[in-house]
Amino acid sequence: MPTLHIGLIGFGTVGAGMVEILLHNRQLIADRIGGEIVLKRIADLDIRTDRGVSVDPAILTTDAMDIIDDPGIEVMVELMGGCDQALDYISMAMERGKHVVSANKALIATHGKQLFEMAERYGVDIAFGASVAGGIPIIKSLREGLAANRIQSALAILNGTSNYILTRMTQEGLSFQEALSMAKRLGYAEANPTLDIDGSDAAHKLTIIISLAFGFPFSYGDIYKEGIDTVSPEDIRFAGEFGYCVKLLAIARKSDDQIEARVHPAFVPRDHILANVNEAYNAVYVEGDFVGQTLFYGLGAGRKPTGSAVVADLVDIARNHFKGITRRVSPLSFSRTPSKELSIKPMDEIMTDYYFRVSALDRPGVLSRISGILAEHNISIAAVIQKKREAHRAVPVVMLTHEARERDVRKSLELIDKLDVVTDKTVVFRVEKKAGI
Amino acid sequence: MPTLHIGLIGFGTVGAGMVEILLHNRQLIADRIGGEIVLKRIADLDIRTDRGVSVDPAILTTDAMDIIDDPGIEVMVELMGGCDQALDYISMAMERGKHVVSANKALIATHGKQLFEMAERYGVDIAFGASVAGGIPIIKSLREGLAANRIQSALAILNGTSNYILTRMTQEGLSFQEALSMAKRLGYAEANPTLDIDGSDAAHKLTIIISLAFGFPFSYGDIYKEGIDTVSPEDIRFAGEFGYCVKLLAIARKSDDQIEARVHPAFVPRDHILANVNEAYNAVYVEGDFVGQTLFYGLGAGRKPTGSAVVADLVDIARNHFKGITRRVSPLSFSRTPSKELSIKPMDEIMTDYYFRVSALDRPGVLSRISGILAEHNISIAAVIQKKREAHRAVPVVMLTHEARERDVRKSLELIDKLDVVTDKTVVFRVEKKAGI
Repeated sequence: MPTLHIGLIGFGTVGAGMVEILLHNRQLIADRIGGEIVLKRIADLDIRTDRGVSVDPAILTTDAMDIIDDPGIEVMVELMGGCDQALDYISMAMERGKHVVSANKALIATHGKQLFEMAERYGVDIAFGASVAGGIPIIKSLREGLAANRIQSALAILNGTSNYILTRMTQEGLSFQEALSMAKRLGYAEANPTLDIDGSDAAHKLTIIISLAFGFPFSYGDIYKEGIDTVSPEDIRFAGEFGYCVKLLAIARKSDDQIEARVHPAFVPRDHILANVNEAYNAVYVEGDFVGQTLFYGLGAGRKPTGSAVVADLVDIARNHFKGITRRVSPLSFSRTPSKELSIKPMDEIMTDYYFRVSALDRPGVLSRISGILAEHNISIAAVIQKKREAHRAVPVVMLTHEARERDVRKSLELIDKLDVVTDKTVVFRVEKKAGI
Repeated sequence: MPTLHIGLIGFGTVGAGMVEILLHNRQLIADRIGGEIVLKRIADLDIRTDRGVSVDPAILTTDAMDIIDDPGIEVMVELMGGCDQALDYISMAMERGKHVVSANKALIATHGKQLFEMAERYGVDIAFGASVAGGIPIIKSLREGLAANRIQSALAILNGTSNYILTRMTQEGLSFQEALSMAKRLGYAEANPTLDIDGSDAAHKLTIIISLAFGFPFSYGDIYKEGIDTVSPEDIRFAGEFGYCVKLLAIARKSDDQIEARVHPAFVPRDHILANVNEAYNAVYVEGDFVGQTLFYGLGAGRKPTGSAVVADLVDIARNHFKGITRRVSPLSFSRTPSKELSIKPMDEIMTDYYFRVSALDRPGVLSRISGILAEHNISIAAVIQKKREAHRAVPVVMLTHEARERDVRKSLELIDKLDVVTDKTVVFRVEKKAGI
């Protein structure tokens, strides 16, 4: 029976998930692919901790070179995380003709170009299906299932921790801090959740999605990013009154030869299918010129779903290996860089609807002064909620705008926040209801 | 540049969509796959009608044999529909070593076994990604993206016409007939919509999903099927009062070594993501043992989305062809039939929750007589709505049950409908809220 030999570097949560699948579904996978995937070696600095899966102790090693230098191993699976060391190991493995499977989104997002060039030079495959949205086969779908399409936009919920927190804030009215504490207690947030809640993790994944959708290695640094720590229960309530909910969205949208690339909390119409992606679920909403609007939904993290994606990559490589081929699909889904390279749309230039919550004293003429400044900047108001309270105390003046330009919004809010009747910095969120959503 | 030559049989709606994509996205597809897909010949009985795409008249023919017998054509695309003739053409093409791409769900669902065996005998590929859920890459996902998983269940909305009608009935309170007329007027239903609304179309697609999920050619005839013509606005309103909406669901669920396979209108909890699949959209909700719950959503029909799926299949074959291989993934996703063959769970044996609407005279003791019969059959009531109207007139007694066995439900409804206080046949729908939904 044909066999693919693999070595695993990094025996943590996802590594153990992969091993569990290979053990538990060994027969099923063999039936599917007509061959065996054999785990020959596992390297980790810690080979003593019980990972909850039974492996022959003889295959454990603390030396990654035992895998990299083993000519009998055809695929190195890198699940150690981090960048520098992982990059070194992957480079050495490729030099030695090994295919690489990695779930390391930060690495792919920041060193993708280098990795893809190296894979091409050495004629090996690099697969990273587990790096975006866990078990959801979005990378394969972008490369293959939707290959007939020019991708026009992708709007995605890519960070399970943030989505869990926003779900609790929406459904139970918790504050951000309360929801974060709950997320930590239940294991949906790590002890240091910064990368999850500040949008970095979603931006890493969006970098990879953009690269695949548009066919060139996109730079992580080009993505505009805001986290969810500015979202308050009050804004979520107002969103609800306007018929929206608040999600941390990762947005890629092509207009002319420019790409919008941004991650931030956004208002999403409540009857949109993305608005119904709750708890720790992820979803990627992709629009193609022929397929139209599609959604891919599932668990974006965790030992089992991420393990499922790693093993799907192994199955892919095994199916190639058993046929004696490599590089059937190029990592970016494009065999050659598309003729027209796309530039980044500066954030100042994006056009969308906006939500403002102005804290103003409840005096006559306040709304007229605010709306006057907006009008001067070509921002027209679509809806307002102004609730009366006692005089001399600040009240929220809440409004939705029609489509406006980010630059104009920033300028006018600067002026509005300087008004003597405005007592606090205006809260602003983008409202996504354009084509594609 | 490497080239894949294709011939198209059937220049109808989907055929024209495929041609349009190959023309419009020629460069994009070439960039992706590093080669060309060249449409060498189109056969149709009618080669005079303008299909809205510009093709060289010289490639048109009325004789399918011009494609089948052309040794320079590597792939025959069958988009003519129907079974006997299509099967003949496909058999001849395969005998001559051609790969086949087909969107013909009825053919695959009823002759899949024979087609797959033939493809194996002649060493060719047969791809049918467009046969289920249009542009949604669910077939590729089942075969590849979710390959690490033992599939546990699939719940799907697979018929756009039915979903459109149910959406109109739900959102505007239309009757089935009114919504059907509207669907016809707007092109969402054909002049003869029988196959769409009686569940046959969804059952064809479910047959294919089950075959791929569980690895053996499943029989269309084994699927239990009810259409949506029994759904009334009244039941949709009661569903809403209980927190549900009504969808035509295609259900495959594995329990022990049996498979439930059924298509019927069902109550779906309103906060479930499937409940938010509206209009003519399709969605497939798949649960795997490691990936957990996933959803694939998009347009299930129409020239462009279905064309997108046909071209994705061509891209797949092209990528194989350019590497000199065939049959990289077997049609059913399993290289060999899984050791354990699964049997069909008889419909009488399925367990689910139920909704009953009993038409009863508004007299004392009615509810007690009905619930007494249910209790005798081990059916316990979870919720009741009984609205008072005038005496001596029938009123609906509406109830949800806890999990019950279909056989018991049928027996007890037979007895209930014989009660002198019951004036009409009891309306019954299944309520899907078990694991996996």
